[in-house]
Amino acid sequence: MICLTRGTDAEAMRTMTVIGTGMMGTSIALALRAKGVQVYLRDVDPAVAASAAALGAGTVEIPTEVVDIAVIAVPPSQIADVLADCQAKGIARVYTDVGSVKAAPLAAAEAIGCDLTNYVGGHPMAGRERSGPTAASPSLFLDRVWVLTPLACTKAHAIDAVTELVRLAGAKPSVMAPADHDRAVARSSHVPHLVASVLAASMENADDTVLRLCGAGIRDATRIAAGDAALWTDILSMNATAVSKVLSEIAADLSAAAHALAADPNELAGVLRKGNAGRALLTGQANDSW
Amino acid sequence: MICLTRGTDAEAMRTMTVIGTGMMGTSIALALRAKGVQVYLRDVDPAVAASAAALGAGTVEIPTEVVDIAVIAVPPSQIADVLADCQAKGIARVYTDVGSVKAAPLAAAEAIGCDLTNYVGGHPMAGRERSGPTAASPSLFLDRVWVLTPLACTKAHAIDAVTELVRLAGAKPSVMAPADHDRAVARSSHVPHLVASVLAASMENADDTVLRLCGAGIRDATRIAAGDAALWTDILSMNATAVSKVLSEIAADLSAAAHALAADPNELAGVLRKGNAGRALLTGQANDSW
Repeated sequence: MICLTRGTDAEAMRTMTVIGTGMMGTSIALALRAKGVQVYLRDVDPAVAASAAALGAGTVEIPTEVVDIAVIAVPPSQIADVLADCQAKGIARVYTDVGSVKAAPLAAAEAIGCDLTNYVGGHPMAGRERSGPTAASPSLFLDRVWVLTPLACTKAHAIDAVTELVRLAGAKPSVMAPADHDRAVARSSHVPHLVASVLAASMENADDTVLRLCGAGIRDATRIAAGDAALWTDILSMNATAVSKVLSEIAADLSAAAHALAADPNELAGVLRKGNAGRALLTGQANDSW
Repeated sequence: MICLTRGTDAEAMRTMTVIGTGMMGTSIALALRAKGVQVYLRDVDPAVAASAAALGAGTVEIPTEVVDIAVIAVPPSQIADVLADCQAKGIARVYTDVGSVKAAPLAAAEAIGCDLTNYVGGHPMAGRERSGPTAASPSLFLDRVWVLTPLACTKAHAIDAVTELVRLAGAKPSVMAPADHDRAVARSSHVPHLVASVLAASMENADDTVLRLCGAGIRDATRIAAGDAALWTDILSMNATAVSKVLSEIAADLSAAAHALAADPNELAGVLRKGNAGRALLTGQANDSW
């Protein structure tokens, strides 16, 4: 990963349109409004955009000029279509998105003829399990890694503009190849989400005795299972290959552990010690709160 | 589960011996010391008992009389042998333990001829991932459920004494059959621990890119994986049958989810919605911090 520096000759960002004013889009809008950027808000549901505007995230008025940047904050499967639509209308000089999956939306955008020279894929490594504009926070991105996935054909002014957006939000830009990003988040985020969901789902039919004996251990282990089911279906489906690969490893490791339970305490101890070691890596090196 | 009330004719607890002064044993000692009980501390490692004594948990002196109650706070596989030894020496009028598994230690105790009339199995639903006396806290049990597993042959004075111990520690006694307890904690605690361990273990060989993209999501999901590997090997091995049954369900659910990833978004959405529902049950009804 490379940290980007912005050319001194670039003009400062003045105007931005956010398309999709859920938790993530509204958080970006709030963060950039606080830096003096004029923010225009759009959502497929006008009431949601109005709710974001009421929170001080910007205006639902239609911009009278081409904006400096458009941030596409919609589920991964919709990014390509929204990008194509925005580019057809020429609403912005530069485009980015905040999807949790990068390769599949990019391939879709290429397939339908989007202009990839003024588009830079992005993914802020920040989030929360609550959704909608009322869950937004302008400080969501402070000191977080924000992955950018420019291509060889991406123009310098587009990279500069997106890098400035990231810095204005208080985050740290990191360049990665789309496939590398997808492979990494499959392990760091997507598989843990699915595992937490399956663990939480197993509680649905548990009797009162089981629930009475549940505590902070399983509650922490399943916190992320509260995430928006429709959005996560979209994310996981769009990164199916990478997620499936890691999930197969986890499933095999669980099967081995199940076998070791009664048959081989030494092997079981080995799994738990590896868990200790992996956990130590996470607490030593991970980011703070997403 | 039944809440126990103590007979008015019972005498108040005055003396207690704690055998095994790790985090759990020392926490009980500290809690009962604060209620004026004379506490004697024993550990297979005298330095650990001395460390607990230095924290104000009691004394390492040998009691000069039979104590009111002995609390056996050792790993589940050692409970029966320690109980037999203590009963052979007649160190206490009543015996209890704090093991996370109840049926197998009880069967072992019966098999080696322990007196089950003055012994009541126990399991405080409280804990932390750190171990040793320095991790102990007298407030660990406040308002927590403390499972007790008396048998038909258990004498009333033994149940009274253990119930008083639980109340003095600030916890809520709940009577369950040993097998019911083991089946419930397999789902509420043991399987989540193993799943968190396998998830954390998968980080051990992850590259820097993956670790850089890890955040609070996977950190919360793996917190309990930091637990003592030797103790948890013992716990899981002693509850192998119940844990294996639930683990097989989880593994099957993960396999189904893996299949649904690319093949059936509706099924995937169903898993995630069930996860939302199970998570809501946990946050609505679970206890606070173990």
